[in-house]
Amino acid sequence: MSDRRQPVLGVLGGGQLARMLAIAGAPLGVQSLVVDSSSDACAGQVAPLVVADWHDHAALGEFAAKVDVVTFDFENVPADTAHWLAERVSVFPNPRALAAAQDRLAEKTLFRECGLATPEFVPVDTRADLDRALAVTGAPAILKTRRLGYDGKGQFRLRSADDADAAWAALGAQAAAHGLILEAFVPFERELSVLAVRGRDGEFRTWPLTRNWHTDGVLSLSLAPAPDIDALQPRAAALARTLAERLDYVGVFALELFVKDGELLGNEMAPRVHNSGHWTIEGAHTSQFENHVRAVLGLPLGDTGARGASLMFNWIGELPDPAPLLRTVDGHWHDYGKRARPGRKVGHATVCAPDASTLLERAEALAQVIGWEQPVAAVREAVGI
Amino acid sequence: MSDRRQPVLGVLGGGQLARMLAIAGAPLGVQSLVVDSSSDACAGQVAPLVVADWHDHAALGEFAAKVDVVTFDFENVPADTAHWLAERVSVFPNPRALAAAQDRLAEKTLFRECGLATPEFVPVDTRADLDRALAVTGAPAILKTRRLGYDGKGQFRLRSADDADAAWAALGAQAAAHGLILEAFVPFERELSVLAVRGRDGEFRTWPLTRNWHTDGVLSLSLAPAPDIDALQPRAAALARTLAERLDYVGVFALELFVKDGELLGNEMAPRVHNSGHWTIEGAHTSQFENHVRAVLGLPLGDTGARGASLMFNWIGELPDPAPLLRTVDGHWHDYGKRARPGRKVGHATVCAPDASTLLERAEALAQVIGWEQPVAAVREAVGI
Ligand SMILES: Nc1ncnc2c1ncn2[C@@H]1O[C@H](COP(=O)(O)OP(=O)(O)OP(=O)(O)O)[C@@H](O)[C@H]1O
Ligand SMILES: Nc1ncnc2c1ncn2[C@@H]1O[C@H](COP(=O)(O)OP(=O)(O)OP(=O)(O)O)[C@@H](O)[C@H]1O
Repeated sequence: MSDRRQPVLGVLGGGQLARMLAIAGAPLGVQSLVVDSSSDACAGQVAPLVVADWHDHAALGEFAAKVDVVTFDFENVPADTAHWLAERVSVFPNPRALAAAQDRLAEKTLFRECGLATPEFVPVDTRADLDRALAVTGAPAILKTRRLGYDGKGQFRLRSADDADAAWAALGAQAAAHGLILEAFVPFERELSVLAVRGRDGEFRTWPLTRNWHTDGVLSLSLAPAPDIDALQPRAAALARTLAERLDYVGVFALELFVKDGELLGNEMAPRVHNSGHWTIEGAHTSQFENHVRAVLGLPLGDTGARGASLMFNWIGELPDPAPLLRTVDGHWHDYGKRARPGRKVGHATVCAPDASTLLERAEALAQVIGWEQPVAAVREAVGI
Repeated sequence: MSDRRQPVLGVLGGGQLARMLAIAGAPLGVQSLVVDSSSDACAGQVAPLVVADWHDHAALGEFAAKVDVVTFDFENVPADTAHWLAERVSVFPNPRALAAAQDRLAEKTLFRECGLATPEFVPVDTRADLDRALAVTGAPAILKTRRLGYDGKGQFRLRSADDADAAWAALGAQAAAHGLILEAFVPFERELSVLAVRGRDGEFRTWPLTRNWHTDGVLSLSLAPAPDIDALQPRAAALARTLAERLDYVGVFALELFVKDGELLGNEMAPRVHNSGHWTIEGAHTSQFENHVRAVLGLPLGDTGARGASLMFNWIGELPDPAPLLRTVDGHWHDYGKRARPGRKVGHATVCAPDASTLLERAEALAQVIGWEQPVAAVREAVGI
């Protein structure tokens, strides 16, 4: 280590988001220090790692003394850990914003207060609540844990009221600890996300809306800029800004949206860099990772414009053979350095091109070799060429 | 560290080149391990660092056992160190190629053998040799050490034969240890470099020619693609390929060229990623750093096309205020994490744009704020718009 005084960014959680934050910080002269409970955390391959759990105040105190700012790779850091740290060092986003995004009920209530419609939702604490809630939402519906859900985990889909017992059997035991919420199932036309960043001085920017496709509740493909967003982009940006200002949010966040009858509905907010923004590494003038680092350290934000069109492929469980991607013009490989495991996010790849039609050509050639023809066919349909 | 088996790249030398190699390797799932004699080496901020000198066989043996491939951040690694390592682990580029590039006499002789003209040159071992050499080259001329020169160090410019005593006083003492060479001073029209990469299977690519400007013998600006290179690009690429095949070269190298009367003259070859290729990080589909990692590990090479036009500013001695660059659209900051010191390469910035005219607008707006109007005026003149 150089003893030149460089800003040090503390990151809670050492997964791929921390890893990509550390890589983005390095050219800015920012040194990262990562905390994770596992010595195996993949961010530890690119930055020093403190192995500690969220309640280890001795280790967290030492960590806080070494860093200039603390941020999150992981949104489910316990609220009291965030508060405890915030008494010792600057924490961005602030613990209140984190808490709002940790609870689906608080989050959706906030969305409505900010003028963003949401699917019908009702909190559920008991089996009897579930029947009452179903009467409000109608079926189909989705029962979700209020806290600690991710990648479609902690969810149960009800086709009809007949599924209430099965839903309760699956999630009822979590009602007391994490709370539950029943949401109307929205037969959406498409899923979009808006990535936004707000600086310490209130400077605010959004990247172009991204269109997302999920498989088994997990993101599989992201296309940016999403097609046909002229009318939606300014509305999504205005909503994201209202939300960010209400929370005094600093850093990058993602707002996941459904489009139904041409209207935006809020699904959830991720108070951190987000999987649907990985395309920005090569596809935008400034990546979500770099702008998050800039925002939390109080540096000027970078331009969020797209360079062209980009498609991100998410690698779940295991990596495919990298060779076809490495041979793709403007194709970019991201191996997170994790071991393969079913359902695990182990890497992604982004294909870029000057325009959507060239992008489709490149993506389809790749898809054919790696067996992704079907998901990529949906992208062509969305682009409509 | 994950115990998943990732390829490990060993890098000899821990400066900014090693740092940028490690950053480029991470998304490919490549872990880097760096050797440097200083515990302060800036690559140590992004990768594990072994502190050892080039003759510490115990430390180098341990290092060799941990890595899959060895490469160089620093071309002046002693030839016997490279050979010693090559007996234990794959070393790319091979020690013979390294040796050819370490000696200006061997290098220029090789250029001529490959059909690349050079400035007139004569080896000089004694004071009497210098007079004989001057008779061949004429004046002005440059006396250089054959080995260990970089960034214009170890050079003396002679305006006329009258400067021979002064030149000998400056460099004569190094004649025995490093050898000297006298070169005719070429009143070149422009300086270009061609960055090239060759894979382990012989696959070969070049990036678009780069135009370079030096200040006090040190690179200050690089513009890519260089203007007016339609005729020169295929010739430079063919020469680079001949050279690479002759040396069985694997990895990235730079060939520094002078253009005189529209003809190419070879100045020198850098057997490694090169300062004039830093623009490729954002300005090309695949950067020199990523392609070097791919090449030495035997992965397919990436496309070397430019995304648009790029201008690199080299920060020598100390960094300017980053804010104006951070506010420049498609502007990219690179702080190497080094302490300021006169003459030291401490960082660079690259401004990109879809075309040369937009690039000039952005670069001139930046130049005005940071006091680089004069050097950037030369760029506008070169572009001719
Ligand atoms: N109310 C809904 N109506 C229709 N589809 C839904 C609804 N809620 C969730 N989904 C589908 O399930 C996916 C995952 O849901 P949600 O975002 O709530 O889960 P999560 O576990 O928080 O996921 P992630 O971590 O990927 O954001 C959504 O992207 C959407 O495709
Ligand atoms: N024979 C020559 N005629 C004219 N100019 C020259 C000549 N040799 C060197 N120069 C000028 O000096 C600069 C540095 O020279 P050279 O490349 O030999 O030095 P170096 O120390 O190896 O530099 P670097 O490490 O930057 O490549 C050249 O880029 C060129 O501008």
